[in-house]
Amino acid sequence: MSRIAFIGLGNMGAPMAHNLLKAGHDLSVYDLVPGAVNTLADAGARPATSADDAAQGAEVVITMLPASKHVEALYLDCDLLASIDGAALVIDCSTIAPDSARKVAAAARARGLTMVDAPVSGGTAGAAAGTLTFIVGGEAAAFERAKPILEAMGKNIFHAGPAGAGQVAKICNNMLLGILMAGTSEALALGVANGLDPKVLSDIISKSSGRNWATELYNPWPGVMDNTPAAKGYAGGFGVDLMLKDLGLAAEAALSTRSSIPLGELARNLYSLHSGDGNGKLDFSSIVNLYTHKTQG
Amino acid sequence: MSRIAFIGLGNMGAPMAHNLLKAGHDLSVYDLVPGAVNTLADAGARPATSADDAAQGAEVVITMLPASKHVEALYLDCDLLASIDGAALVIDCSTIAPDSARKVAAAARARGLTMVDAPVSGGTAGAAAGTLTFIVGGEAAAFERAKPILEAMGKNIFHAGPAGAGQVAKICNNMLLGILMAGTSEALALGVANGLDPKVLSDIISKSSGRNWATELYNPWPGVMDNTPAAKGYAGGFGVDLMLKDLGLAAEAALSTRSSIPLGELARNLYSLHSGDGNGKLDFSSIVNLYTHKTQG
Amino acid sequence: MSRIAFIGLGNMGAPMAHNLLKAGHDLSVYDLVPGAVNTLADAGARPATSADDAAQGAEVVITMLPASKHVEALYLDCDLLASIDGAALVIDCSTIAPDSARKVAAAARARGLTMVDAPVSGGTAGAAAGTLTFIVGGEAAAFERAKPILEAMGKNIFHAGPAGAGQVAKICNNMLLGILMAGTSEALALGVANGLDPKVLSDIISKSSGRNWATELYNPWPGVMDNTPAAKGYAGGFGVDLMLKDLGLAAEAALSTRSSIPLGELARNLYSLHSGDGNGKLDFSSIVNLYTHKTQG
Amino acid sequence: MSRIAFIGLGNMGAPMAHNLLKAGHDLSVYDLVPGAVNTLADAGARPATSADDAAQGAEVVITMLPASKHVEALYLDCDLLASIDGAALVIDCSTIAPDSARKVAAAARARGLTMVDAPVSGGTAGAAAGTLTFIVGGEAAAFERAKPILEAMGKNIFHAGPAGAGQVAKICNNMLLGILMAGTSEALALGVANGLDPKVLSDIISKSSGRNWATELYNPWPGVMDNTPAAKGYAGGFGVDLMLKDLGLAAEAALSTRSSIPLGELARNLYSLHSGDGNGKLDFSSIVNLYTHKTQG
Repeated sequence: MSRIAFIGLGNMGAPMAHNLLKAGHDLSVYDLVPGAVNTLADAGARPATSADDAAQGAEVVITMLPASKHVEALYLDCDLLASIDGAALVIDCSTIAPDSARKVAAAARARGLTMVDAPVSGGTAGAAAGTLTFIVGGEAAAFERAKPILEAMGKNIFHAGPAGAGQVAKICNNMLLGILMAGTSEALALGVANGLDPKVLSDIISKSSGRNWATELYNPWPGVMDNTPAAKGYAGGFGVDLMLKDLGLAAEAALSTRSSIPLGELARNLYSLHSGDGNGKLDFSSIVNLYTHKTQG
Repeated sequence: MSRIAFIGLGNMGAPMAHNLLKAGHDLSVYDLVPGAVNTLADAGARPATSADDAAQGAEVVITMLPASKHVEALYLDCDLLASIDGAALVIDCSTIAPDSARKVAAAARARGLTMVDAPVSGGTAGAAAGTLTFIVGGEAAAFERAKPILEAMGKNIFHAGPAGAGQVAKICNNMLLGILMAGTSEALALGVANGLDPKVLSDIISKSSGRNWATELYNPWPGVMDNTPAAKGYAGGFGVDLMLKDLGLAAEAALSTRSSIPLGELARNLYSLHSGDGNGKLDFSSIVNLYTHKTQG
Repeated sequence: MSRIAFIGLGNMGAPMAHNLLKAGHDLSVYDLVPGAVNTLADAGARPATSADDAAQGAEVVITMLPASKHVEALYLDCDLLASIDGAALVIDCSTIAPDSARKVAAAARARGLTMVDAPVSGGTAGAAAGTLTFIVGGEAAAFERAKPILEAMGKNIFHAGPAGAGQVAKICNNMLLGILMAGTSEALALGVANGLDPKVLSDIISKSSGRNWATELYNPWPGVMDNTPAAKGYAGGFGVDLMLKDLGLAAEAALSTRSSIPLGELARNLYSLHSGDGNGKLDFSSIVNLYTHKTQG
Repeated sequence: MSRIAFIGLGNMGAPMAHNLLKAGHDLSVYDLVPGAVNTLADAGARPATSADDAAQGAEVVITMLPASKHVEALYLDCDLLASIDGAALVIDCSTIAPDSARKVAAAARARGLTMVDAPVSGGTAGAAAGTLTFIVGGEAAAFERAKPILEAMGKNIFHAGPAGAGQVAKICNNMLLGILMAGTSEALALGVANGLDPKVLSDIISKSSGRNWATELYNPWPGVMDNTPAAKGYAGGFGVDLMLKDLGLAAEAALSTRSSIPLGELARNLYSLHSGDGNGKLDFSSIVNLYTHKTQG
């Protein structure tokens, strides 16, 4: 078992840290919100007074932060790297721009530290259940070191390539997810407008060439599947604004490489219109309401 | 076993008719191309001299034609319906506009005939292997009558709803397929432009929330999967121009119901740009070349 | 002065007929709505009891109807052509599919009649003021005959080409108008979101390379220009649903020629989303509300 | 007349500097390319050995650089600000991200310097003719100081708002320009595919509600207008890659404010596809070739 510093105890970070505790690891934890620290302390973690304090003596430092600017601020501007033991492994689980991930990884390497980017997918439910997917960027040896730690929090652990590759792969996957969720929504809405039963159509598509993760597990149309956000008024799940953030990262990655992502950027705009209508906190499968002009109540 | 008239022996119709023969049915066949008729005659079918001749005495009449205008011309303008026995079952397997399908079905009903629309998916390979998917629109009793016949040619037989519903469901599925194939292509191209290995990225996506029929069975990137059109220079498979036709049917269905299908119409335009560059006969997964600016040679 | 039959006295047709009366023409008028006929009769027109009745003895027959199906129904199914004098000139001012226009023109030609398609732009204000634009398709000689009649109702009279060309040119212009109005809206919304004053930005654009009809005459942002629909809560003007109809005609024209119109079809979907939110009767410049998430009320 | 330092003597900067000389100003000039400096020296400018050297004693410092990173590098990393006299006016004519412009302006202000952003439009032809448009962001008093200087190089000088506003206004204008040029191209291509003469259609649109800067001055269809890039094989003018850069800045501005710009981002992708086909150096009106599938030769 390892001595792990865990920094960033939000909706995702908190349940991830709990799973590390359950797996028998020795945790020191820090968050800007004291209540979040206390909850983990009650569960057996050592409450730290700062990120630097959490990192003292840790064999593994894990961060789970909202965006590029927070990661750069913590590691570079506040110089957390200076507080980390040379032999420690640094794992950033935040979803951020590949360029930011590479910049921080380079700074870590310059200090002799080993770092991987390991963004996750699976949402808060996956975080609680310990079934997250981790997509890791970094050296092969670093990936092998990170893997057993990540397995305490997730089910699928992928090695995408060198530093930053975890972010790129996550962004590509989530861009495609945004496209297929909106695409599935518009296919269902088109069928219903033309007289089909959404359940029958969903059943046909899920056994045909249009099938995808949404038709299999996460159908956006209310009444088609149980135990989905669509069955619960689009509460919980993966929020519209989080999808919007990931589609924005995809757009940035396309801009920096002059790539063409017409469907991805159109999807970004559809989610942006939907968010602007006041739906930012709903699950992203609520995009179907953009097509059906229903509003949540 | 049934006496079946099969009209339309093109790339799809010919292998479908062969499978009906193999299943022991008694076939009369017709096509405007004499050679197509002769090939089936060599395999044991009765060569007819016209569509009317083929339909004489048939218990089941099956048509497999290119587009709405051919179906309307045959059944309505040339009045094939008048040559069909009152007890016969009429099955149109063409992919056409739902409005056309409903119009022909209404004309059949007015003459006391039972008709279903049963468009297929699965391509020429599925037609040859007898593994097509049929999506059927029509009365429940008519669906039950059609099912054992269709099972000689296909694996999945769906009942989508009343007359025209088979077309609607097929169109919705294929629109989503067009979106997913182009979306998968742009996600892979974005990843590669940002330094990822297409095989590694495909593997990650196929096990994550971006997964879909294309990442599972029909990856568009050359070298990622064997036995796909991408592995064979995009020869064979489901042509760009056929996808373009289906996306056009989706656009018509959206226009007639004032539905919004922004991703579907953008996908139509991407395939249209790709076809206009001279790629109409290639498999539709060649859309990836639009993103990578490769040309086939 | 001519004996003119005017059929179709709606929001556009009625003021157009009034202007013909004012110019001294002898009018017989018909509409399915008796009140519309009576209003024109009060102004000096002969009230007809049917379209056929109106057409009796007319030197010029003008129709102004909602859509392709009404034009085909009147001229072909109800055979109005049979009631028209062989020497008369037929002018259809409806905005319809080019294919419909060509079909009706061919039927007229087969009976020895001369017909032009002459769709208009300029909206109800232009119809009332007699400042409409007419875009005419037909033979050059027919155009010359139509021109003086049309000049009583409009200011700009264009000859676009042979039969149907008037419709094509109108559709292309209006598709571009739909794109530039939505494009202007999103440029202004982007500027405002980034801190600019919409009036200053509009002024700059209207003197720069982004300038267009909307920035010059019909600015969609409230408060920038007086005497625009935007200044009056988007009442009056050219309705969202009329723009949606024209963008649908553009999509059909693209489908039938396999043209790529990515911006045009995206614009159609944006207006479709906007109409679906309950804004179909507002002026089409209200599309700016889709970007700003304001609702009328 | 003023002592002016001019840094950045590329395709735009060189003719701008020449016009300042012609107007009688006293110029010191610098560029990384010695030949560019020599050409201006031959015309009467003082050749400087570095940007700092050029700035010595200048009353006005003007920079014209390719992108945000160059502007930040020069003013901030290389600290050009330190070499500028406290009473001098700093004018950056580069087109860069508003955030970068604001950052550099804030740094200037912190040192007591007065700075404006003044991006231009009008291309190399406008630079040579002294007919550029300048869109200025900064304090009103600074704008008044900059105006007479800019008038030696341009015809229209706009004040868009505070620091960064020049960039925002330029970006919004150019995004709209990109949409209009592609939209005009697709309207013309649709008309031609449906049988119209491009010249007749252009004439109609230019007098109708679809009219815009492109139909008036810069028609993309070859043979419609003389003296346009379309008349010269799309040589010269405003390059595809420059339009792509500006659409990328628009996308960044939308991402940072969560704005929806569906048409703008689709336009970016169309230019990106066009550039990827090898057309990056052609004039941006060559986007019409994307629709007609013509290639330059």
